[in-house]
Amino acid sequence: LKNRNGTRRLATATEKSLFKPLDTFSDRHIGPNDAEVQHMLNSIGYESMERFVDASVPPSIRLKEAAVDNAAIQPLSESELFGRAKAFAESNKPFKSYIGMGYHNAVVPPVILRNVIENPAWYTQYTPYQPEIAQGRLESLVNFQTMVMSLTSMHVANASLLDEGTAAAEGMAMAFVAGNQRKKTFLVDSGVLPQTISVLRTRAKGFGIKLVIKDFFEGIKDEAIRSDLCGVLLQYPDVNGHVKNYTQLAEEVHSASALVICATDLLALTSLKPPGEWGADIVLGNSARFGVPVGYGGPHAAFFACSQRLQRKMPGRLIGRSRDATGKPAYRLALQTREQHIRREKATSNICTAQALLANMAAMYAVYHGPSGLRQIANKVHGFTKVLKSQVEAFGYDVENQCFFDTLTIDTGIVEGSASAVHRVAREAHINLRHIDDIRVGITLDESMSAEDLVRLINVFASAVSANAVSLSSLQPPPASNTTIPEDIQRTTPFLHHPVFNTHHSETEMLRYIHHLQNKDLSLVHAMIPLGSCTMKLNSTSSMIPLTWPEFGGVHPFAPVDQVKGYLEMIKELEIDLCKITGFEACSLQPNSGASGEYAGLSVIRKYHESQGEANRKICLIPVSAHGTNPASAVMAGLKVVSVKVLSNGALDLEDLRSKAETHKDNLAAFMITYPSTFGVFEDGVQEACKIIHDNGGQVYLDGANLNAQIGLTNPATCGGDVCHLNLHKTFAIPHGGGGPGVGPICVAKHLAPFLPTHDIIATGGSKGIDAVSSAPFGSASILLISWAYIKMLGGKGLADSSKVALLNANYIAHRLAGHYSVKFTNGNGRVAHELLIDLADFDKKADLKVMDFAKRLQDYGFHPPTCSWPISTAMLIEPTESESLDEIDRFCDAMIEIRKEAQEVIDGTQPKDNNLLKNAPHPIPVVTLSEEEWNRPYSRQRAAYPLSYLLEKKFWPTVTRIDDAYGDLNLICDCPSVEETESMP
Amino acid sequence: LKNRNGTRRLATATEKSLFKPLDTFSDRHIGPNDAEVQHMLNSIGYESMERFVDASVPPSIRLKEAAVDNAAIQPLSESELFGRAKAFAESNKPFKSYIGMGYHNAVVPPVILRNVIENPAWYTQYTPYQPEIAQGRLESLVNFQTMVMSLTSMHVANASLLDEGTAAAEGMAMAFVAGNQRKKTFLVDSGVLPQTISVLRTRAKGFGIKLVIKDFFEGIKDEAIRSDLCGVLLQYPDVNGHVKNYTQLAEEVHSASALVICATDLLALTSLKPPGEWGADIVLGNSARFGVPVGYGGPHAAFFACSQRLQRKMPGRLIGRSRDATGKPAYRLALQTREQHIRREKATSNICTAQALLANMAAMYAVYHGPSGLRQIANKVHGFTKVLKSQVEAFGYDVENQCFFDTLTIDTGIVEGSASAVHRVAREAHINLRHIDDIRVGITLDESMSAEDLVRLINVFASAVSANAVSLSSLQPPPASNTTIPEDIQRTTPFLHHPVFNTHHSETEMLRYIHHLQNKDLSLVHAMIPLGSCTMKLNSTSSMIPLTWPEFGGVHPFAPVDQVKGYLEMIKELEIDLCKITGFEACSLQPNSGASGEYAGLSVIRKYHESQGEANRKICLIPVSAHGTNPASAVMAGLKVVSVKVLSNGALDLEDLRSKAETHKDNLAAFMITYPSTFGVFEDGVQEACKIIHDNGGQVYLDGANLNAQIGLTNPATCGGDVCHLNLHKTFAIPHGGGGPGVGPICVAKHLAPFLPTHDIIATGGSKGIDAVSSAPFGSASILLISWAYIKMLGGKGLADSSKVALLNANYIAHRLAGHYSVKFTNGNGRVAHELLIDLADFDKKADLKVMDFAKRLQDYGFHPPTCSWPISTAMLIEPTESESLDEIDRFCDAMIEIRKEAQEVIDGTQPKDNNLLKNAPHPIPVVTLSEEEWNRPYSRQRAAYPLSYLLEKKFWPTVTRIDDAYGDLNLICDCPSVEETESMP
Ligand SMILES: Cc1ncc(COP(=O)(O)O)c(C=O)c1O
Ligand SMILES: Cc1ncc(COP(=O)(O)O)c(C=O)c1O
Ligand SMILES: O=C([O-])O
Repeated sequence: LKNRNGTRRLATATEKSLFKPLDTFSDRHIGPNDAEVQHMLNSIGYESMERFVDASVPPSIRLKEAAVDNAAIQPLSESELFGRAKAFAESNKPFKSYIGMGYHNAVVPPVILRNVIENPAWYTQYTPYQPEIAQGRLESLVNFQTMVMSLTSMHVANASLLDEGTAAAEGMAMAFVAGNQRKKTFLVDSGVLPQTISVLRTRAKGFGIKLVIKDFFEGIKDEAIRSDLCGVLLQYPDVNGHVKNYTQLAEEVHSASALVICATDLLALTSLKPPGEWGADIVLGNSARFGVPVGYGGPHAAFFACSQRLQRKMPGRLIGRSRDATGKPAYRLALQTREQHIRREKATSNICTAQALLANMAAMYAVYHGPSGLRQIANKVHGFTKVLKSQVEAFGYDVENQCFFDTLTIDTGIVEGSASAVHRVAREAHINLRHIDDIRVGITLDESMSAEDLVRLINVFASAVSANAVSLSSLQPPPASNTTIPEDIQRTTPFLHHPVFNTHHSETEMLRYIHHLQNKDLSLVHAMIPLGSCTMKLNSTSSMIPLTWPEFGGVHPFAPVDQVKGYLEMIKELEIDLCKITGFEACSLQPNSGASGEYAGLSVIRKYHESQGEANRKICLIPVSAHGTNPASAVMAGLKVVSVKVLSNGALDLEDLRSKAETHKDNLAAFMITYPSTFGVFEDGVQEACKIIHDNGGQVYLDGANLNAQIGLTNPATCGGDVCHLNLHKTFAIPHGGGGPGVGPICVAKHLAPFLPTHDIIATGGSKGIDAVSSAPFGSASILLISWAYIKMLGGKGLADSSKVALLNANYIAHRLAGHYSVKFTNGNGRVAHELLIDLADFDKKADLKVMDFAKRLQDYGFHPPTCSWPISTAMLIEPTESESLDEIDRFCDAMIEIRKEAQEVIDGTQPKDNNLLKNAPHPIPVVTLSEEEWNRPYSRQRAAYPLSYLLEKKFWPTVTRIDDAYGDLNLICDCPSVEETESMP
Repeated sequence: LKNRNGTRRLATATEKSLFKPLDTFSDRHIGPNDAEVQHMLNSIGYESMERFVDASVPPSIRLKEAAVDNAAIQPLSESELFGRAKAFAESNKPFKSYIGMGYHNAVVPPVILRNVIENPAWYTQYTPYQPEIAQGRLESLVNFQTMVMSLTSMHVANASLLDEGTAAAEGMAMAFVAGNQRKKTFLVDSGVLPQTISVLRTRAKGFGIKLVIKDFFEGIKDEAIRSDLCGVLLQYPDVNGHVKNYTQLAEEVHSASALVICATDLLALTSLKPPGEWGADIVLGNSARFGVPVGYGGPHAAFFACSQRLQRKMPGRLIGRSRDATGKPAYRLALQTREQHIRREKATSNICTAQALLANMAAMYAVYHGPSGLRQIANKVHGFTKVLKSQVEAFGYDVENQCFFDTLTIDTGIVEGSASAVHRVAREAHINLRHIDDIRVGITLDESMSAEDLVRLINVFASAVSANAVSLSSLQPPPASNTTIPEDIQRTTPFLHHPVFNTHHSETEMLRYIHHLQNKDLSLVHAMIPLGSCTMKLNSTSSMIPLTWPEFGGVHPFAPVDQVKGYLEMIKELEIDLCKITGFEACSLQPNSGASGEYAGLSVIRKYHESQGEANRKICLIPVSAHGTNPASAVMAGLKVVSVKVLSNGALDLEDLRSKAETHKDNLAAFMITYPSTFGVFEDGVQEACKIIHDNGGQVYLDGANLNAQIGLTNPATCGGDVCHLNLHKTFAIPHGGGGPGVGPICVAKHLAPFLPTHDIIATGGSKGIDAVSSAPFGSASILLISWAYIKMLGGKGLADSSKVALLNANYIAHRLAGHYSVKFTNGNGRVAHELLIDLADFDKKADLKVMDFAKRLQDYGFHPPTCSWPISTAMLIEPTESESLDEIDRFCDAMIEIRKEAQEVIDGTQPKDNNLLKNAPHPIPVVTLSEEEWNRPYSRQRAAYPLSYLLEKKFWPTVTRIDDAYGDLNLICDCPSVEETESMP
């Protein structure tokens, strides 16, 4: 097998006719070739793939092949895909949008475009659970946090949330919890973005919060509101561009023992007094105008910052500075805010996958521009807005807001035909303005504008009143006086004074900084990342290329639908294909993560029950083996969680399920199940379980995180589900980006379709749909291109083959590790699904070796460790995916087996329990080059560094030793080093 | 200075008005900011940049500022540049070209596109002179060599030449030399590509070779030819698509003691008997159809292979396998084929910069597809050609060649209007065919075609005879019988059986292989590469982005000019700007490297003298300090080299020059001078030297390699030159790509403009121009975009500022190293130019420490060493460029100073002469992790690895120890390991 001379790499080979394209994607996507597939099948004792699949997947749920074949989804070659994508791109009309409402045209610095978002070494990273091999992106995320903290003047900021709307909802939930869930009124200023209000409406419903949308200054005077008030949300500047001083108001809110939550704009904060200086408790917003394409709505990194008092209640991932075993400073996820540690039914947030990649882009943008560059950009945007204002006023228009940063509300009363006439003229100039009402139009300016763009925009207003057009040379700079931002809310404090924001301003320096960080991080460009439940498969270049085409990147989410035909067609095709794959009727692509999909799906179920007059159905059964987001989402959707047991063989306890379903049958809302189970097995009883639920009036929610095991073999509908979410960032090849972006669409059966999430501005979702779950109508629309391309290129057969090979790869690993490790659960035929759990409890007992010791030692072997201690605390969950070749899988197995031998030495007492290859792992270079005295270990440097010979040729080095989590949590520091700290460093 | 809070990074700052763009390129291109510039000026004792420049550049040659200011070249911001580039792209018409003639539409595998050609970690590499930090690209280039050797069945292949035409010329020169330059006839088959013949004509003239273009089978029978024959060149398949058996012919040529040179096509060789199997001595061609865009003519990697007997005579760079100090296998440049070792006036080739990046792309393409993938591609191309043939024959056309691989010559006699009518129909279908003559059209098919493309093409022929159009469904696969390639020349031997071509076939594996190699190599993404004479400046992303747009990549060089308006406009603008910069009248962008520019420029001078009736002027004066390519180019242009002395202060010996000019005044052709000199100094006497030459009837050739020191301050015309070449890959930011591509345009004074190189197919050059020096009319046209963008974005002021800062950075280094090292030459004011020479001779004397010891030790400090032992064998030539920041320059100086201390320890005897930090350098990780016993050195591991503290945070590791050149040259192995070797490796 070593020598693969002449073999074709076609796991899915059918003889190609002369007229078929050669650049077929499945040949490149699937790791093992025909011979390797056969070798693996033989090793585990099957003669054919079919026999093997029959033994792995219960016959009762198997699909006919035609369900997902090339007739159902016709495969496109890579070049055909580019042709289709180009056609979509060209049917999006390239209008210039000044619609604003939280979405701006961004300027992506080319060095960041090419070296971050187009660079697999960045986008294929996983969430930095293994900080020793993730110091690069951890540093960058700390830059993001620091940027947010500094611009908002808040004590702490997290490493991103999904979007501004859900960030606001998280803020509301925090206020609700801070008021001990007793005070139920949440006041939202009417100047808040409408799409945010829609997301709040959905979320308020789940928590039973009373949402009051009203002008603040009035609302706070209302005693009924004050007395029950848990928090307020305001937008700064507001949706119409007004900039107001909220200092007084913040005091009043605090005196009502409620929290002040401020949605804001980072660029404006270079000029406006930061919310942290006038009393905000929570500050949030969208960071995308810092160099992230608007992309028809996302993905973008929302930011979220809060005061010190609230810091340990903050949702989302937080990166902190700690130290490693040698005392060297090191970054890692602080406060264990990882999904494995989600507080299940006690949670008020389910955030897991966030927007790491986009947060990194925004942070890099700040690093590249630095404080003075950002100030220049802000001055330009603000200056252009001033020029626009004085010009339109000269034409006779009234501008509603005299104070502003970048947004004007213009009264078009003087125009015949008012706003609609102005919009018409704008449209002719290929310009989109915001529709406010019949009289007023809104305009938001941004960095992307040239002076020529400004002239074109001004001339829309000239033309609408038949005034003379202005020319570039006639443009006057605005008056120097800055009455547009009242003195009392001008920013006076410096920001971003940390060295990192004041060093990398030439392209060369920036390039090196990006590569310096990247080289600290293990990603898919280095090795397999066999993280169970995470499906780290190939993120192909062909599916990534269209993403950064300007025809997709430059589209505003609220652009008129006739300008986005390409997007809409692609979205429709993706929805249809996902329905074919899941067996369901309808799909919503709005949720921005798996957890958000869970929440959306459960909310749909609730609404369905309500429509049946059964608003009482609020009980949600969830197996104890479920992912932490499941119960958290249930609670957020207003359900009450009841746990269901699992048996010692890992299977769902059907008797317990039945008894609980019957007990709660009058109030049973839903049952959540993951399939194959989080233990990595296709359970036989899934259909029976679903039947039990249905018989008792409940709906079945299928967590589709493990869909990669199912495609073409079974589907959630056949298993018995009514709704499922899919993680497009797992099964459908959206790269994980170091912890996001993600997309968590939900697919539903026919009876649930009417309840799919809607959107206030762009029509989508069901006729009786729930309110929005994301700010943008189609969530992270631009990255849908990736999954669309993935599905279209694989086609039905390629998709099914991928699932088969994913199963085979996992079973081959189980086979190779058997005898060395205990594979915890298998089905009756001894088969695992697409992942396997190995239990390491025995090593702890015998030699004090923990799961983490094995994980860290795997780093020394150049691998990213599998998922650790979830769903069983003493186990590792290993998922290879179909994209890994036999060589790579063998290399991984060799490493695991060698570590097993190392562990044996500890068991046997050859190596001490507290000083051995595993306990001391990982071994970065500065450690293996210590002096002989300092080294002083019962093993050689060579064995520490190069335990297997492949490592001499190919080794990824951790950059720090094991990191001290406890120290970091005790001494929580979440920003990057200051000038002073930097100077005192070696 | 460490804390640069709030400073703007504008070395070239002028206050920006509100209406000017913010994304100004010079702020990003120039490394030091205002404060840093001021700091450096102060350190070296100047209050202002102007004072400093006055002291560096002789007043007599200084230009007025207006010569190169923003009025002369108006700067575009990065986004404006993209707009302009887009406009050019859109004015190229996207016709599908089947013109062939050595140029094919390529399919670039996306994973190679993104991770090689769009990846700065690959494209910013330098020629692998320092193999310990270049094992990645060395391995890839060996893959290229192996691919060529295997497909051609030849004993050895080099690592690329400039293009097919010059490769053929190199072959001709080898044949000429092999015949001891006595036999002067070189026979070229009339089926050879016309552009190749044109290049041969130019080159034959210089050598005094008699070129006979004739049908082979006839020519070889001619006794007059046979008796004087040094070699023959044939094309296989030939330009009209014929495939012939040349076995017999080869024997006849050999019996005449001449060489058989075969130009061929790698894809065809998967199906045709390889030239090595039927007697070819030299095999060459263009590798671009292996995944390199046609790009309006280039850059592409030509390949060149030869028999064992000729291997040590082969031109170009050759990579060999050797071993490092620990015996580990390691790659490096073999046979010292680097430009520093060019055999000056004894040379018959001047090749230096080649096409490494494109060779790497082609090699990666072969790695990705492997032998069976390539065979599939070949079968498709050949199969389509068969289908085309049978269809057009069915319409009644005659096909001239019954044997073919991918090219047909079709007789259109049956069409009313013949060929021109067919071309008209084709044009309507947006298709280009080859114009052969009034009756015949040529068609060459390629991998990029879809079945739909084939149908469209067939229907051009249908339509021309008013036959019914065919449809895709009606297409018949060709008959299985393969009479189209006669059995006696079908390939029967396997190829590319080496493991590397049979392993990386999934995208994941390919991605990892690319990144694995890349991570072994130091490039500009890691650190400064201060290579004197090489100008390793920023290769900005914004200038690289348009390069891979399909509107530029997909254009055939012989496409009708109305389809390439965008290209032609860009080319015109670039020519005009280069003329402004050099002070000359006209420009040719045809030469593909600096050396090729030298050759072109000198050929122009010869032709000029001839036009004056002075064909006798053949003496070329060249200073001994000149780059090796200078005398080599002179000889190739048919000149006789006379050396001119330099004084001990480094200056040209004007008296020696005068006396030699006068001695040879009747036959004086030219004087070649590099300015500032290769010693890094602006000499005062340049104008006087030029006057001496002109007074004696000669022309002055200025080698523009050091133009980066001149722009806006002086220029070659003002210095007194008549012609100069520029290295766009130095001064004008085309990335070096690990040893190419390059572009070496020549600019000439008015009287020389009529003699600029022409092209046989596309009109270009002077009215009385020399023949072509490259295959394509505008050489490596696509990368001209990079220099065009660079110049347009910097604008006049930014260009001049860049030169000033380049001077400043070099002088600052000279200042910091003074006292530690001896700076060899300065001008009267103690100033160097943009680079500096430090002489290390003393260390050799005192402590047996060679230049190489310092160089290798610099690797341990994370730096690429400066140019070593050139132009003085005991010296290093250091050139920082304007793109390096003060931090980076200080880091470099710190390293140099620390190494100086380490050397002192050897001088002082603290460390032994044969076992010290320098002699043992570099220290890769496997060495610093040796056991204590094996380590056994008089210094610690920590000191070996981390001599300065910055290295703990940021260190680039060499992957092998010092490489044994002698061993490799003795045991010349130039291919990659075979199956057997791989299996016997650890
Ligand atoms: C089983 C399961 N459910 C839900 C999720 C949550 O998905 P996301 O991280 O996209 O919110 C995960 C993520 O790992 C998961 O493994
Ligand atoms: C002074 C000088 N002349 C000519 C050349 C040759 O240029 P090229 O490598 O592009 O052929 C070089 C290259 O380093 C050079 O330094
Ligand atoms: O960035 C591009 O892939 O063009």
